[in-house]
Amino acid sequence: MDNILIGIAGGSGSGKTTLANKLVECFGSDEVSILRHDNYYKRHDDITYEERTRLNYDHPDAFDTELLSEHIRMLKSGQPVQMPVYDYTVHNRSDEFVEVLPSPVIVLEGILIFAEKTLCDLMDIKVFVDTDADVRILRRILRDVKQRGRSLDSVVNQYLSTVKPMHEQFVEPSKRQADVIIPDGGYNRVALDMLIQRVRYQLRHHSRDGE
Amino acid sequence: MDNILIGIAGGSGSGKTTLANKLVECFGSDEVSILRHDNYYKRHDDITYEERTRLNYDHPDAFDTELLSEHIRMLKSGQPVQMPVYDYTVHNRSDEFVEVLPSPVIVLEGILIFAEKTLCDLMDIKVFVDTDADVRILRRILRDVKQRGRSLDSVVNQYLSTVKPMHEQFVEPSKRQADVIIPDGGYNRVALDMLIQRVRYQLRHHSRDGE
Repeated sequence: MDNILIGIAGGSGSGKTTLANKLVECFGSDEVSILRHDNYYKRHDDITYEERTRLNYDHPDAFDTELLSEHIRMLKSGQPVQMPVYDYTVHNRSDEFVEVLPSPVIVLEGILIFAEKTLCDLMDIKVFVDTDADVRILRRILRDVKQRGRSLDSVVNQYLSTVKPMHEQFVEPSKRQADVIIPDGGYNRVALDMLIQRVRYQLRHHSRDGE
Repeated sequence: MDNILIGIAGGSGSGKTTLANKLVECFGSDEVSILRHDNYYKRHDDITYEERTRLNYDHPDAFDTELLSEHIRMLKSGQPVQMPVYDYTVHNRSDEFVEVLPSPVIVLEGILIFAEKTLCDLMDIKVFVDTDADVRILRRILRDVKQRGRSLDSVVNQYLSTVKPMHEQFVEPSKRQADVIIPDGGYNRVALDMLIQRVRYQLRHHSRDGE
């Protein structure tokens, strides 16, 4: 049995990152490696900082799907990849990389990953984390205001001007692609246990192949 | 580790019975026993056949929740139960029973099981099978017209007069209780595999207890 790619999608603040992190915590990074869609924002060296601040980062076209697809295929065929690191302060890809090693289970986590058919076709299990919009915006406000030092007004403006419309246009319809929908994501113990058992099965069969 | 109760709910024609049956097929009836909510329609010896035909069978109150709860508790504590058999031709409980034996995994399957808090509180895993209303009514038409010999008009009338309004009032809101939502139920191989691995884990630990 080969390795598998688990896609974990869901709106901003849905609990998908928590879910992905809990899988790594449970099995360790040798068994479960993570690719984050946010790391694959397109490089924009050709335009100015000012122009870059005006781009729509909540649209599927903001991502370098070609590079991400190539990285997934490399990991699936057993090769390590250099995952780009995005620098939010300059709204551009930095020159740094994080090495991601091929592992029996690869998790791809991101808001818009199910909106790209190319990515969906590479996934073995598609999990959509579904959380009410009011809970999601509250989590986002707490994170951005308390942890990232942003003003309440700027969070609200960004949410209403791009996050919400892009969610309704791309994220919510992409739920149709899901094999399994998990309310509340990483905070849902019963669903997490199901996913853990599925991953455990994968790891057991993967190591059996290697014997 | 004790036995577990898995609730499988979802609208008429959603694929929940298929999902429940596939679990039994996969593990056998010694490991997975099934309780069906439809078997627990209330007994109505006190009213006439005519009166019984006019009752609303798509409402939570149509079910004998007290008896069902008692049976779940008995199975959970290792005792066999006599599951009633409903006679649709007379719209009343028959005098027959089906013996259900206690097993490591008990599945309770029914449209309205998540609408009863008493039942929800007894469940360890709550799975909601979510299928589009148009697909569900098409499956129901095919089943009722081809297999049960009913007229198309009668199926449409019953659907519009009670099945649909009761779905919207009770079934759809009860999805909030779900731990996991599975699009297309038993026809969804990826989700079925996850549930199978969770059940396998249960069986492994159950038998370990018995050693």
